[in-house]
Amino acid sequence: MKKQTIKEILKDYKKVLHHDITVYGWVKAFRSNRFIALNDGSTINNLQIVVDFENFDEAVISKISTASSLKVVGEVVESQGAGQTVEIIAKKIIVLGDNFTEELQSTILQPKKHSLEKLREQAHLRFRTNLFGAVFRVRHAVTFAIHSFFNKNHFFNVHTPIITGADAEGAGEMFGVTSFDLNNIPRTEDGEIDYSQDFFGKQTNLTVSGQLEGETAAMGLGRIYTFGPTFRAENSNTTRHLAEFWMVEPEVAFNNLEDNIDLAEDFLKYVIQYVLDNCKDDLEFLDKRFVEEQKSKPEKERAKEGLIEKLQNVVAKRFMRVSYTEAIEILLNSKENKKGKFQFPIEEWGADLQSEHERFLVEKHFESPVVLFDYPKDIKAFYMRLNDDNKTVRAMDVLFPGIGEIIGGSEREERIEVLKQKMQEMHVEEEELWWYMDTRKFGSVPHAGFGLGLERLVLFVTGMTNIRDVIPFPRTPKSAEF
Amino acid sequence: MKKQTIKEILKDYKKVLHHDITVYGWVKAFRSNRFIALNDGSTINNLQIVVDFENFDEAVISKISTASSLKVVGEVVESQGAGQTVEIIAKKIIVLGDNFTEELQSTILQPKKHSLEKLREQAHLRFRTNLFGAVFRVRHAVTFAIHSFFNKNHFFNVHTPIITGADAEGAGEMFGVTSFDLNNIPRTEDGEIDYSQDFFGKQTNLTVSGQLEGETAAMGLGRIYTFGPTFRAENSNTTRHLAEFWMVEPEVAFNNLEDNIDLAEDFLKYVIQYVLDNCKDDLEFLDKRFVEEQKSKPEKERAKEGLIEKLQNVVAKRFMRVSYTEAIEILLNSKENKKGKFQFPIEEWGADLQSEHERFLVEKHFESPVVLFDYPKDIKAFYMRLNDDNKTVRAMDVLFPGIGEIIGGSEREERIEVLKQKMQEMHVEEEELWWYMDTRKFGSVPHAGFGLGLERLVLFVTGMTNIRDVIPFPRTPKSAEF
Repeated sequence: MKKQTIKEILKDYKKVLHHDITVYGWVKAFRSNRFIALNDGSTINNLQIVVDFENFDEAVISKISTASSLKVVGEVVESQGAGQTVEIIAKKIIVLGDNFTEELQSTILQPKKHSLEKLREQAHLRFRTNLFGAVFRVRHAVTFAIHSFFNKNHFFNVHTPIITGADAEGAGEMFGVTSFDLNNIPRTEDGEIDYSQDFFGKQTNLTVSGQLEGETAAMGLGRIYTFGPTFRAENSNTTRHLAEFWMVEPEVAFNNLEDNIDLAEDFLKYVIQYVLDNCKDDLEFLDKRFVEEQKSKPEKERAKEGLIEKLQNVVAKRFMRVSYTEAIEILLNSKENKKGKFQFPIEEWGADLQSEHERFLVEKHFESPVVLFDYPKDIKAFYMRLNDDNKTVRAMDVLFPGIGEIIGGSEREERIEVLKQKMQEMHVEEEELWWYMDTRKFGSVPHAGFGLGLERLVLFVTGMTNIRDVIPFPRTPKSAEF
Repeated sequence: MKKQTIKEILKDYKKVLHHDITVYGWVKAFRSNRFIALNDGSTINNLQIVVDFENFDEAVISKISTASSLKVVGEVVESQGAGQTVEIIAKKIIVLGDNFTEELQSTILQPKKHSLEKLREQAHLRFRTNLFGAVFRVRHAVTFAIHSFFNKNHFFNVHTPIITGADAEGAGEMFGVTSFDLNNIPRTEDGEIDYSQDFFGKQTNLTVSGQLEGETAAMGLGRIYTFGPTFRAENSNTTRHLAEFWMVEPEVAFNNLEDNIDLAEDFLKYVIQYVLDNCKDDLEFLDKRFVEEQKSKPEKERAKEGLIEKLQNVVAKRFMRVSYTEAIEILLNSKENKKGKFQFPIEEWGADLQSEHERFLVEKHFESPVVLFDYPKDIKAFYMRLNDDNKTVRAMDVLFPGIGEIIGGSEREERIEVLKQKMQEMHVEEEELWWYMDTRKFGSVPHAGFGLGLERLVLFVTGMTNIRDVIPFPRTPKSAEF
């Protein structure tokens, strides 16, 4: 692209010093009728434009105000003031778009502090704020790092279907997809809904996971990953749940559980290091905000580390690998459990761990990310590989400070007889998954994979606390605006 | 990852020559009880395993057959035979999975030629064939190249919503999304469907385009692109249409139509060059297949170029930029039009161009990719920028040989009064798009973008002819298997 972004200009300013350049952006602030802070979204940093107002038409100057957009031609000079290396001495200013001043008053573009709730209501404008500019640039960096990691490691990105006729794992409620006119649903002679007349000739839903289809791809291509939207029609109005979110699911032929844990650890560290290396300015801004926010919390709820420090520590530390059985021992013997400090006390082996237990292990007991593995088979999905003890399966969860589970995965059951047995026990229809069974009939191989909720990782990396603030247009119960 | 793929082993064989290594894969062929062609999906090339069957248990040897999976330990040696540089002298063979021999007979894993239709019916197994291995590795390379191009050029990937309450541009029929029990849809007192009781509290659909939401993001972040699934509930059973497909939509603040055309040209050339550089083996395989396929066609329908030659030419040639008005002149004056050879004869300015016209311009008249621009406003969408002639809009289509339109885009109408007028004329509800209107009220800027259907590009790059053969699990009328 011929046009230079403000990020490029600020980074390589030596190339343009004392030259005339053209820049474009929105006005962040206009001080003393002389200093414009111009931003084009490429970076959190503004470019300072110096205006000698006597040289410009008053009509132009009067239209320069917060949120209006400009094209500026001027000379790049070393800055006299503090806070920036270079600035532009304006020679020509074109106001591209001014403001509907009255309506602006009620928007979040009005330069003052707005609540996150209000910013969410104007999600179409929040890209223009410092905070959400930073969050969405970091989200991009996380996304790109994910693709880069897998590509470097010889994985192939596979697009599994969004509309599906198969209920993957009974993982929660699904949204229906139909092209029926709901006022006029065709019926069979028996009065049943006649799905044969629907678009796909059968009942279809939005996918809850691409894993099962991903496994079939891994059985041919070896190493694959999916990266796409997934859906849950659960009526959960929490800061951790979305009805529509993006999921990353690698699946690797010939990998066992240890390989899978290694992969998860390498993967998370790569992505976080990439963000540390490539989003310095945005992270510094988010770090300040994070520290500020901690101050408003009761002392014992405050994070021990700053945001950047936390990210650096996760990259530096070896993830602790602990079996579920060991974890239960630790929890049973903990002061917290004995003194009844957990909302859900741990009573015996077999209990499903809650967020409070996961966070205890990570934040108090081990003080590092933790990988739990070998969970009781009854609390995990049918496709996870059964251990010889006949009680546990080769499942793994990666637990992160402040956030709990960030990755869940397993070695898959590749032995068809064991798989069939498990499906029967867990009431999964074999006929529905005939194609999945096929992958165990012709050169079945050990394989393993995991799922990462993109938004969980972006929450962790940005230090934001509500999942609705790390996806551009959140979908939640009673809310699908935009 | 510690394990080496066969691709890596073959590429860097000097590192492992005369060493013992462990390899994993599926048996592609087993000749003379001695030579195994092993493949792990990482490359189209097989690794030859040499078995001295006297050293192995007969029970093991008997399980080695096409499609079974192996773990092999052996020494890497220079190959005596033709066709490969190195081979492995097997010291240890473990059969990971053998075959349900009888069922195998009816699958596409049976080593003989299968029709594309049959391969499609067994989409879960076709990843294991040479052809679909190549296609999906190329699809990955295209995908990664797209992310790389935009990242290098300072774009941010934005995830626009899949479930939407807004009907973007009336672009065809949409799928409904609901959590209603269709047997028991709640009604208001007036007998209307009570969407307030549906999951999102309103009627929702699957997105047909992320453009409008993408524009709001570009108005903050400057340069963005979306890359996600989009949907059309159109009953089109053709080789060019899918109900679910992946779309890439960049949107750039401060760009005009010329910038947009430059971007599209740079983008397509980058992606195609990336595939040429990174998918040599797969392209050579696809090229051979392409040439073979041409032979079965009547002479006048045959492609003039081979597949790789075609890709190299597209990268080398400057795209011809031609206004719609010029194109109509060319078509009106063409022998083809005068002799009635077009199925849809061109009669006058204003006609919508059909695939046959686009292909005439690209393949016969200009013999290069063509960018048409400045289309009649009546045949284009409401958001495209009106020219001063009041008759045409700043639309553009990129036309490719053999495929017709591969990209469609425009400079957007950034002037709110003109936009409102157009919306009124074209019956688009302003109130529904209140958030879109907002982007023109506060620092509106010229901007432009386009849409690329990923599958169209993969068709072009792989030389495949049916769009169902370039997406893992195609969704089409009456078909949502897997």
